[in-house]
Amino acid sequence: MKIAIMGFGTVGSGACEEAKTAGGIEVKRILARHGREGYEYLNDIITADIDDITGDPEIELVIESMGGIEPAREYVLKCLRAGKHVVTPNKNLISACYKELMEEAEKNGVRLRFTSAVGGGIPWLFNLLRTKRADSITSVRGIVNGTCNYILDAMHDKGADFGDMLRNAQELGYAEADPSSDIEGTDTLRKTVISTNLAFDAAVTEEEVPCYGIDTIKACDIAYLKEKGLVCRLMMSAVKKGDAIEVSVEPAAFGKDSLEANVKTNNNLITLTAENIGTQSFYGQGAGMYPTGQSVIQDVLDIRDGKEMEIPAAASGLRADNSEAVRRYYIRHDRMCEHIEPLIDTFEERDGIYYCISKPIKVGDMHAMGHHRKEKGKDMFFAALAE
Amino acid sequence: MKIAIMGFGTVGSGACEEAKTAGGIEVKRILARHGREGYEYLNDIITADIDDITGDPEIELVIESMGGIEPAREYVLKCLRAGKHVVTPNKNLISACYKELMEEAEKNGVRLRFTSAVGGGIPWLFNLLRTKRADSITSVRGIVNGTCNYILDAMHDKGADFGDMLRNAQELGYAEADPSSDIEGTDTLRKTVISTNLAFDAAVTEEEVPCYGIDTIKACDIAYLKEKGLVCRLMMSAVKKGDAIEVSVEPAAFGKDSLEANVKTNNNLITLTAENIGTQSFYGQGAGMYPTGQSVIQDVLDIRDGKEMEIPAAASGLRADNSEAVRRYYIRHDRMCEHIEPLIDTFEERDGIYYCISKPIKVGDMHAMGHHRKEKGKDMFFAALAE
Repeated sequence: MKIAIMGFGTVGSGACEEAKTAGGIEVKRILARHGREGYEYLNDIITADIDDITGDPEIELVIESMGGIEPAREYVLKCLRAGKHVVTPNKNLISACYKELMEEAEKNGVRLRFTSAVGGGIPWLFNLLRTKRADSITSVRGIVNGTCNYILDAMHDKGADFGDMLRNAQELGYAEADPSSDIEGTDTLRKTVISTNLAFDAAVTEEEVPCYGIDTIKACDIAYLKEKGLVCRLMMSAVKKGDAIEVSVEPAAFGKDSLEANVKTNNNLITLTAENIGTQSFYGQGAGMYPTGQSVIQDVLDIRDGKEMEIPAAASGLRADNSEAVRRYYIRHDRMCEHIEPLIDTFEERDGIYYCISKPIKVGDMHAMGHHRKEKGKDMFFAALAE
Repeated sequence: MKIAIMGFGTVGSGACEEAKTAGGIEVKRILARHGREGYEYLNDIITADIDDITGDPEIELVIESMGGIEPAREYVLKCLRAGKHVVTPNKNLISACYKELMEEAEKNGVRLRFTSAVGGGIPWLFNLLRTKRADSITSVRGIVNGTCNYILDAMHDKGADFGDMLRNAQELGYAEADPSSDIEGTDTLRKTVISTNLAFDAAVTEEEVPCYGIDTIKACDIAYLKEKGLVCRLMMSAVKKGDAIEVSVEPAAFGKDSLEANVKTNNNLITLTAENIGTQSFYGQGAGMYPTGQSVIQDVLDIRDGKEMEIPAAASGLRADNSEAVRRYYIRHDRMCEHIEPLIDTFEERDGIYYCISKPIKVGDMHAMGHHRKEKGKDMFFAALAE
């Protein structure tokens, strides 16, 4: 099968390498402004003109690895309209434009697949669809951001500060120069939206999902939780309750004997629960040139060989709805005011800092309070107590 | 697709139920001596005559869920020769007759698949084949016997005796009346042979794999390991080293912060390592009517829709070879003799019992010593120290 790659960064070149390993896939064109060091032998197939790809009838499939929304969206639409299958690891694009792109693919009789958009090298979305073929999914949840997990795990192991461990993650190449989409939970949010929509044939949007990251965590939070036998992780969570999907992104505190608590460094662990089969988890490298590149190529092989799983239309009518979702939270703050006090079940005060366990609180209320205090520059961190 | 089921026990009826959930599969015949309580509506399609299945041109696929080797082997061969695909969860059969059955399927242009033979409801073998399509497997290992894990986990949690926890497992239906194939490691051995052969395109046999179970473990072993921060699990392990596959079944002691140590009750955790993608693990229910039944039906759907993964011929030439495999072991015994003493690095003696950590020992030597002492009725238990 002859393919093209749009975007020749880490994932694009990883996919190029993995295509060689897999065999039977020829990269005919690469859309990029310039070549890449170490890949000079590919200079002849590099083009800056999208029409060289969409206009080439030999190219059956295009890998989009440019990242971001525009011009990726425009180029993917062009490829689909030109009758080419598209494979992409681009979570921003799929989270934001899922419905539009799937409908365009459908209209043109081609496939759009994006297994690597959640879980990197872990075949999560593929297996979610495969399980769904013969069962009803009741929940999806997991650790899907390796950068945050690296930071939280390192803070737990070393008693270190957030800022120092973030800098470590940047030095190791796990975190970007601008790490905000990781640490504020946006990356996890996008993966949550994608997983939720596939799990429940839904059309949930990013705006409907409460999202609170780990950028306000401190060494004292980790130390307090550790003392109580708990370990903090940033979690995606989507649970079907009747016609509602209770869906959120937030830190959660797990017992130290749980699988989640023992996911080390930058690994991911993603779990589904289904009515008949019970709980299934998938663990591995959620990012990186070779894992993500291979996951991209697995989608390519699936499409080439007709082995991809069907994606049903987003027609279940299930909606994001947290109105009945209540949880008990760990909350750390520095001033016991009249807004917080009524929510607290138990607390300890140490050196002017309040470490609290809340009564059951609505998820929306907890997130609103957290964001309000963050905007005001006031100290607070919270984490759901995992059941 | 019209199918038949041979054998109508727990897994056969589970597959029957799951076929209904999946849809598009009609069970036309069931081979059984008599009907099953709760399934009286199926009495009309029950037959005791295999020819009613092999002679029916409408039946395209047969599920073999009789268990054991004969007459399952004979019937499966008949079905393959009659041009019918076969799906089976029967690990005894696949472990013992893999090459013969795969060659017969190939000769008749039909498919034989057995994802549920290892890991029950976990899509382990399917994903192993899928990863292998684009990568080179370097090791497979895991907890693949839920009964043993239930016993080990309960002993660890409660400080209880082996015999009491085995009886609990029997009462819960996790262990058979005759539990020997679970606790002596034979069930794990079969799953190891199947996983190893798929991972490495090999033709390893049960006889070539050193196998030591958990039937000699005592509460004092668990307590000693726990004191050292270790947790005991029964492991399958197959690692590629050059042209050799170092393959074994044995208890292993893991640090309490590992994923393996935190696999609770009767769950399974199975892990592959591949050259490019690194480590991937799969977790879930390794047995049970619905999980195993669903895994069987997933194979049926794959074959119906042409979505099954290819199984390459067992032609890699890689062989089981533990001659260079050395490990450090925890060894508990009651008499420090001239055979054991030279192998020991450090030990503690408590109440006449020796708790030892060995120097690096050849796997074959450790297993030979363990089996020798078991045959002589002498006390010993050992567990490899996981790296």
